[in-house]
Amino acid sequence: CPCPLPHGDCSLSRLLSLLLTARRTLEICLFAFSSPQLGCAVRLLHRRGVRVRIVTDAQYMGLQGSQIGLLRLAGIQVRHDQESGYMHHKFAIVDRRMVITGSLNWTTQAIQNNRENVLVMEDAEYVKPFLDEFERIWEEYNPINYTFF
Amino acid sequence: CPCPLPHGDCSLSRLLSLLLTARRTLEICLFAFSSPQLGCAVRLLHRRGVRVRIVTDAQYMGLQGSQIGLLRLAGIQVRHDQESGYMHHKFAIVDRRMVITGSLNWTTQAIQNNRENVLVMEDAEYVKPFLDEFERIWEEYNPINYTFF
Repeated sequence: CPCPLPHGDCSLSRLLSLLLTARRTLEICLFAFSSPQLGCAVRLLHRRGVRVRIVTDAQYMGLQGSQIGLLRLAGIQVRHDQESGYMHHKFAIVDRRMVITGSLNWTTQAIQNNRENVLVMEDAEYVKPFLDEFERIWEEYNPINYTFF
Repeated sequence: CPCPLPHGDCSLSRLLSLLLTARRTLEICLFAFSSPQLGCAVRLLHRRGVRVRIVTDAQYMGLQGSQIGLLRLAGIQVRHDQESGYMHHKFAIVDRRMVITGSLNWTTQAIQNNRENVLVMEDAEYVKPFLDEFERIWEEYNPINYTFF
């Protein structure tokens, strides 16, 4: 069901509990990821054996507070754009069956202070375009294609 | 149907053509609105008699390139948050029947250079929560409640 979330901790709890249902795969495609709680949940899933893949934005990922370094340190694969534009998506796909998308970046600022929406959809019709986009981006951002080293 | 849009002009054309189907009402709830083409389309709908209402973010609306001043000048009602957090939604509702939402702000930068998604949904089940959120915000941001004058 669609559920624009209200502010604050309740939203965070709902997002955490959705993510923690992952048993096999988790694809994350996020402009900004700095929430320690969400970072912790993703590392937990990785330790449980869930295959986690993350795509993020190159400009944002190195900023202070970003979780990306900690996620890489934990052994999670992360790829990023190398474009001047932003990788501005904000979605995650759980077990190829549920897409979580909307306006929300995974930051404490956004969760606690912003007016945001989060859509949770399990219809294959809605999940598939996000899966396809994730696989397209994942290949496009394959490090063997990076040119700036 | 759900349709994450590809980059560029094709996406802009599709978004414009969806908006221009409006016959009665258009609710817009956008963090950033600076695209001249989209501003133009919204003013056209206003001149045709469509009831347009816009909610936007207070920090962004006065920046150079923002369309908000021009839209107000045309007589369109605009309300904004007065919070420290961002009004970060990016959705529009056409004739109370179709919601257009996703990661896309209505800026030329985002349309041309970013990796974004736009969902277009006509199921009442998906439209209603956005309509409800719009009405809630619209009342909350009623200028009679502003405290900073």
